[in-house]
Amino acid sequence: MKILVANPNSSEIVTGIIMKSAARKAKETTELIPLTNPKGTKNIDCGFADYQSVWSFIRAILEKVEEVKPDAVVLAGFGNVGVFALKEALSIPVISISEGTQTIAGLLGHKYTVLTMLKQFIPYQEDLVRLYRLENKCASVRAINVNVEKCVTDREETLNQLKDEILKIVEEDGAEVVILGCAGLCGYDEALQELVGLPVLDPVTVAIKIAEMMVETGLTHSKKRKFAFPPQEFDAYMWNGN
Amino acid sequence: MKILVANPNSSEIVTGIIMKSAARKAKETTELIPLTNPKGTKNIDCGFADYQSVWSFIRAILEKVEEVKPDAVVLAGFGNVGVFALKEALSIPVISISEGTQTIAGLLGHKYTVLTMLKQFIPYQEDLVRLYRLENKCASVRAINVNVEKCVTDREETLNQLKDEILKIVEEDGAEVVILGCAGLCGYDEALQELVGLPVLDPVTVAIKIAEMMVETGLTHSKKRKFAFPPQEFDAYMWNGN
Amino acid sequence: MKILVANPNSSEIVTGIIMKSAARKAKETTELIPLTNPKGTKNIDCGFADYQSVWSFIRAILEKVEEVKPDAVVLAGFGNVGVFALKEALSIPVISISEGTQTIAGLLGHKYTVLTMLKQFIPYQEDLVRLYRLENKCASVRAINVNVEKCVTDREETLNQLKDEILKIVEEDGAEVVILGCAGLCGYDEALQELVGLPVLDPVTVAIKIAEMMVETGLTHSKKRKFAFPPQEFDAYMWNGN
Amino acid sequence: MKILVANPNSSEIVTGIIMKSAARKAKETTELIPLTNPKGTKNIDCGFADYQSVWSFIRAILEKVEEVKPDAVVLAGFGNVGVFALKEALSIPVISISEGTQTIAGLLGHKYTVLTMLKQFIPYQEDLVRLYRLENKCASVRAINVNVEKCVTDREETLNQLKDEILKIVEEDGAEVVILGCAGLCGYDEALQELVGLPVLDPVTVAIKIAEMMVETGLTHSKKRKFAFPPQEFDAYMWNGN
Amino acid sequence: MKILVANPNSSEIVTGIIMKSAARKAKETTELIPLTNPKGTKNIDCGFADYQSVWSFIRAILEKVEEVKPDAVVLAGFGNVGVFALKEALSIPVISISEGTQTIAGLLGHKYTVLTMLKQFIPYQEDLVRLYRLENKCASVRAINVNVEKCVTDREETLNQLKDEILKIVEEDGAEVVILGCAGLCGYDEALQELVGLPVLDPVTVAIKIAEMMVETGLTHSKKRKFAFPPQEFDAYMWNGN
Amino acid sequence: MKILVANPNSSEIVTGIIMKSAARKAKETTELIPLTNPKGTKNIDCGFADYQSVWSFIRAILEKVEEVKPDAVVLAGFGNVGVFALKEALSIPVISISEGTQTIAGLLGHKYTVLTMLKQFIPYQEDLVRLYRLENKCASVRAINVNVEKCVTDREETLNQLKDEILKIVEEDGAEVVILGCAGLCGYDEALQELVGLPVLDPVTVAIKIAEMMVETGLTHSKKRKFAFPPQEFDAYMWNGN
Repeated sequence: MKILVANPNSSEIVTGIIMKSAARKAKETTELIPLTNPKGTKNIDCGFADYQSVWSFIRAILEKVEEVKPDAVVLAGFGNVGVFALKEALSIPVISISEGTQTIAGLLGHKYTVLTMLKQFIPYQEDLVRLYRLENKCASVRAINVNVEKCVTDREETLNQLKDEILKIVEEDGAEVVILGCAGLCGYDEALQELVGLPVLDPVTVAIKIAEMMVETGLTHSKKRKFAFPPQEFDAYMWNGN
Repeated sequence: MKILVANPNSSEIVTGIIMKSAARKAKETTELIPLTNPKGTKNIDCGFADYQSVWSFIRAILEKVEEVKPDAVVLAGFGNVGVFALKEALSIPVISISEGTQTIAGLLGHKYTVLTMLKQFIPYQEDLVRLYRLENKCASVRAINVNVEKCVTDREETLNQLKDEILKIVEEDGAEVVILGCAGLCGYDEALQELVGLPVLDPVTVAIKIAEMMVETGLTHSKKRKFAFPPQEFDAYMWNGN
Repeated sequence: MKILVANPNSSEIVTGIIMKSAARKAKETTELIPLTNPKGTKNIDCGFADYQSVWSFIRAILEKVEEVKPDAVVLAGFGNVGVFALKEALSIPVISISEGTQTIAGLLGHKYTVLTMLKQFIPYQEDLVRLYRLENKCASVRAINVNVEKCVTDREETLNQLKDEILKIVEEDGAEVVILGCAGLCGYDEALQELVGLPVLDPVTVAIKIAEMMVETGLTHSKKRKFAFPPQEFDAYMWNGN
Repeated sequence: MKILVANPNSSEIVTGIIMKSAARKAKETTELIPLTNPKGTKNIDCGFADYQSVWSFIRAILEKVEEVKPDAVVLAGFGNVGVFALKEALSIPVISISEGTQTIAGLLGHKYTVLTMLKQFIPYQEDLVRLYRLENKCASVRAINVNVEKCVTDREETLNQLKDEILKIVEEDGAEVVILGCAGLCGYDEALQELVGLPVLDPVTVAIKIAEMMVETGLTHSKKRKFAFPPQEFDAYMWNGN
Repeated sequence: MKILVANPNSSEIVTGIIMKSAARKAKETTELIPLTNPKGTKNIDCGFADYQSVWSFIRAILEKVEEVKPDAVVLAGFGNVGVFALKEALSIPVISISEGTQTIAGLLGHKYTVLTMLKQFIPYQEDLVRLYRLENKCASVRAINVNVEKCVTDREETLNQLKDEILKIVEEDGAEVVILGCAGLCGYDEALQELVGLPVLDPVTVAIKIAEMMVETGLTHSKKRKFAFPPQEFDAYMWNGN
Repeated sequence: MKILVANPNSSEIVTGIIMKSAARKAKETTELIPLTNPKGTKNIDCGFADYQSVWSFIRAILEKVEEVKPDAVVLAGFGNVGVFALKEALSIPVISISEGTQTIAGLLGHKYTVLTMLKQFIPYQEDLVRLYRLENKCASVRAINVNVEKCVTDREETLNQLKDEILKIVEEDGAEVVILGCAGLCGYDEALQELVGLPVLDPVTVAIKIAEMMVETGLTHSKKRKFAFPPQEFDAYMWNGN
C-alpha cells in the first residue's frame, strides 16, 4: 500500500519530523511517500496562513497523486488544510490528522482535549471541532507553553513541567484523552502518556493507521453531494498565469 | 493478533453470519475467535432484550478473555450491548459494531443514516446516537422492510426494491452514507453499495478493521474516570447463586 | 394505592433507608411495597454494576408486579437501572428516582446540580442526563465527599462542612437546585436545605410523589414506539437454565 | 389544600371550561379557587395579547393570594402568561399548564407534540419550548383545525376527523404523546386518547395534579437567583394612576 | 428619517441618558424622538418588572407611532421589553437594543460577554440569549459591580477597577467583545474600550445605527407567521376600563 | 466613505452584476470600489473552488486596501471566501455577504432559508451556517432551479415559477425570510419579495449597508484572539516565486 503523506508547509525539516511520526506504527508493507508543499508557508498558525498555503498544497497533492498513484492521502497539518476540498477532488481516502484523530479520540474516552501552542489559535481550532461536528466530544482546546529547544537539552525537567500542566488541564476540563495539536510536541506522546496516565495521541501516527484501515477495508468517502467532484474540470479552477 | 468476536445473542446461526462478515476484510494474520452468549436472548430487538442478554454476555466475554487472551474485543450487536461497561472491565480495545461504525461513518460523508428493522426500535437507536454524542452527524434512523428469505430466493428483485427504498430515504434525509443496522442485511452491503452509489457499511466488517487498527497502533480507551475499573472486585458484582 | 418500591441492590439495609425516605411524604392511603433485588450487587457504582444488577432486578419486579398488582413502580437507584426496559415491559407508571427527580427539578430553578460520590461516576451520570434529554437544565454533576459515619457521630460539624462544599459548587456552576444523587446523603435533605437556602431534593421522596400523582391522574407512559411491549414474549428473552 | 386556578383571559366562559378540566382529577379535599383576569384580553393568541393581559393577571393573582392564602397557583393559559415573573413574586408553587404539562410529558414518551390552533402562533410556542429548555423532548408544535361548534353538534364525525389528523402528525413527527395546547380541545382528551391510542394530555388537568404533588411534597421553586424576589418592593413596579 | 427611541422605564433621567447615547453616532438628518413610558416602573431589573412595564410601553409606542409616524422604533431597555409583541403590532423596523446589539456582536468576534448589574438578573438575561437563538455566540452573562456615583467623582480610579474586572472576565470566559447591558455604564464604552483593548458596545448607540441601516435598506421584519399582525383588532386586546 | 467591493471570481461580468446590487441602496456619498480577483476561478461552486480562488483574492484585497485606503471591505461571494482570514489581516470592517446577511436575517423573522443553485453545494452552505453559529436561526439551505436566460426572455412566467417553488419551500421548512444565495437571482429580490410576501434579501445590497453602518458607528471586529493579526509578517506567508 502507498500512502502520500502531505505536509502543508514548505519546511522540509517539519516534513522530516512528520515522516518519523508517520513511520512509527505503519506496517512494513506500507510505503510512505512524503510531500512538502513547494509554495507553502513555513508554518500554518492562523486562518490567513491556511488560505495562503492550501491552494498550492492541493495542486501539489493532485500532481503527486497522478504521478505515484497512492492508495490514500494523509494531510499532515493540524488545521483545516483543505480536507473537504481534497475529498471533493479525490476518490481515494483523504485523512486529515486533525479530523481523523479527533474522530478516533471519541472512541477512547468521554471527552478529549486538543493542545495547541498559541492562544490566538484557539478559536480557529474550536471552529474546526464544530466543522467536524465533534463539539459534544471535545472538552476543550487549550494553549500550552512548549519550549522545544529545552525539551532536547533538559528533557526530563521539561516533560515534568508539561505533565503538571496537562494534568491540571484535564482535571479542570474533565478530559480523558489528550491530542497533541502542536507539532512541537510530536514524538513526545509516549513519554507524556506514561507520565500523565491517559491516552496522549500523536495525530500523524494515528492518521496513518486510519488511512491503512480505510484502504484495507475498501472504504472511502461518499461521492454523493458534499464530496462530489467539482462541477467543472480542475483546470477551470486553477490559475495558470504569472 | 487475536480478536474476540462476541455475539450478544444465543443464536449460533447469527454467530455464523457475523463471523462471515468479520472475516471478509480481516487480515490473514488475524485470528477471529467467535463467542456466542450462552445465556442470551435469540435476538436483541428492544431495551428489555438488551438487559436480559448483556449481563451474561459480559460474564462470558470476561471468561473468554481470561482464557484466550485476545488483543481486542468486538461487540457484534447493533445496540448498546454493554459497550461502556466492558470498557470499564477491560483495558484492551473494546469496539462496538454500532459505536465504531457510526464513528467512522462521520469521516465518509456529511451525515449518515442507520437502517433498522422495526419502527419501535427507532427511539432506542436514536438514544444510542446521542449516547455516542454523534447526533450532529446522524441524518436519521429509519426502519426498512427486509424479507430475508425472499432475498435468497429472488435476490435481484429484492435488491432492486431495497435500492429504491434506500435512495428515497437518503434523498429525504440528506444522508450520504448508509449503515446496515439490521443483521438481516449483513452481507448485502457490497451489492447495495453498487446499486445506490454511496457507501453502505456492514458494521461487523468495519468494526473488525477498527479493532485491528487500534491494536496495531497501541491505542486503547482511557482508564481515567469514565472507563476506570469498577471500584470493587468483579466478584462483588456478580451473583453466584441459583 | 399500591406502589412497588424497588431497590436495584441486594442490600436490605439500603432498602430500609429507601423505605424511610419513601414513606416520609407518601399519603397514608399509599401502600409502599419494598423489593430488594435478590441477585443484585451490593452497590451500583459504575456501568458494569448496572448491567450485573438490572437483569435480575427486572425479573424480580415483573414477578412482584404479577403477585401484588401495584399501581406504579418506583425504581430506587440513582442510575439507569433499566428504566426504559421496564417501561417497555409494563403499562403501569414506572418512575426512576433519577429521571423523575431531575425532570421535576427543571420546574424549580434555572438549572440543577446532581451530587454523586465518586469522581469516576460523573461521566456515567452525565450520560444519563443526556439520555433523559435534560442537558440544558443540568448545571453540573459533581462528586462530593461524604463521611456517612461521621454524619452520625458528629452531625452538626459534618453538615456544616457539607454546606460549605455545596454552596461553593452552586456558586461556581450557577445551580439553583441540588439533587442528592448519592444514597449516603438520603435523609439529610431537609437539614441541608435549611443550611444552604435552596431546594435540596431526596430523589426517593420526590419519586414516590410523582408516582402517586401519575396514578391519581391516570397517566402512564405511551405504549407507542419507544415503550411498546417487547416484540416477543417475555419468556423468549429470559434465560432459564443453570 | 387550596389551589388558585387563574385564567389569564377575561372570559368567564373560558374560566368555566378551565374549572371543569381542573376538577376532573383533583382530590376531594382540594379546594379549587377560580380567578378570571379582570382586565385581560378575551383570548391570548399572540405575543401582543400576552403582554396586554399578563400585567393585570399578575396583579389580580397577587391580590387573590393575599386574600385567600392558597397553597399553590396554577396558571391556566397555554402560553408564557408571566410564569417566571410570578415565580419571582411568590414563594408558593406556581405551575404553568404549559411548562408543567410539557415537563411531565417528557416522562411519558420519547418526544411529544403540542397542538395549537393558529399557524401564526407556532413560532411563539416554539420559543416557549426553548424557554423551558425542553427542545430535545419536543417533536413539534403543530396547528390543527378544530371546529368547536361542530364538535358539539356532530361529535362522532369531528372526533374521527381529529383522530386522522393527529395520527398523521404523530407519524410524520415521531411523537408518542400529544398535548392539547388549544383550549378548544379541552375536555376531548379522553375521547381522543382512546381513538389515537397514545397519551393525550389536557394541560389543566395535569397541572392541577402537579400542584397538588408539589404542595404535598413541600416542594417549591428556588428563591436563589432566577426566582429571587424582585429587588424592589412590589409597589415600586406597579403603576397606580389613571 | 425619524426614529422613535422608547425608554421602557418611567424615569425621565434615564431617558436623558439614553438620548445622549442615541445621538452620539446618529446622522445629522436622523430625528430622534424620545418616549418615556408614562406608566412604567423606575427600573426593569427582573421579569416581574418587565411585565409591569411593558403593557403600557407597547400602548405608548403605538400611540406615538400613530402621532409622529416614525420610520423605525428603538426599544431602549436591555431586556425583553416586548420586542416580539411590538414586531407583531408594527410593520416598520423594531430594534431592541438587546437583540440588535447581540446580533451585531456576533460579527465582531468569536464570542461576546454581556455585563449586567445584579447576579439575580443573570438567568433572565441567559434566557433572552436563547430567545434570540444566539447561545452559540454568547460566552457568558456576568454581573459587575459599578458604583456610578464614584465613576463621576473618581473617574480614573473607577475605570481602572472596571478594566481589571472586565479583563478578568473576558480571559476566563474567552470573550472577544463586551456589551454593556447595564445602563449605569452607558457612556463609558469608549473609555473602557481603550482600556481593555477590545470592542465595548453601548447598545443604544449600536441599535440606533441598525435602525438607520434598516430604514435606508428598506428592510423590515417578515409579517409571515411569527410577526404577523395579531389575529384580532388592537382594541380587543387592550383593557379600557378603570 | 470608501467601500471596497471584492468579487472572489475572475469574471468581470459577475463584478458588474455585483456592483449594480451594491449601488442600489448605497448612499450617494459612499464610493464603491470594485475589485475582481485577477487569479480567481470563474465561479465558486464548491469547496475546491473556494481554496483555488481565495489565496489570490486575499492578496488582491490587501494590495488594493494599501492603494485606496477604503473604510471597509465587502466580500461579494456567497461562500467562505476567506472571511475570517481577512478579519485577521485587516482592522477595518470586513463584511461577508453570506455571514452579514444571514446575521441580519436573524432580526427579521423566526428562521430564514438560503437558496442556492446546486444540490451538491448544500452541505458546504450548511457547514458555513454552523461556522457562523447561526444554525438555530436557519430553517434550511435549499437548491432551486433558476434558468437565468429565461428570466430575461420570459420574465413574468419565470418569476411565477420561482414564486411557487419558494412558497413551497418556506411552507415546508417554516422559514419567514429568504436569502438569495445564488448570484443568478441577484436583482430579482424586489420582484420576488412582492410575489411571495416575505422579505427576500439580495446579500450584496444588504452587506453594503452593514458596512456603511459599521463605519459610521466606528465598529470593527475585535483584534483579540480570533482575529488578531497573523503571528508573522504577511510576507512570511505568501509565496513569491514562480
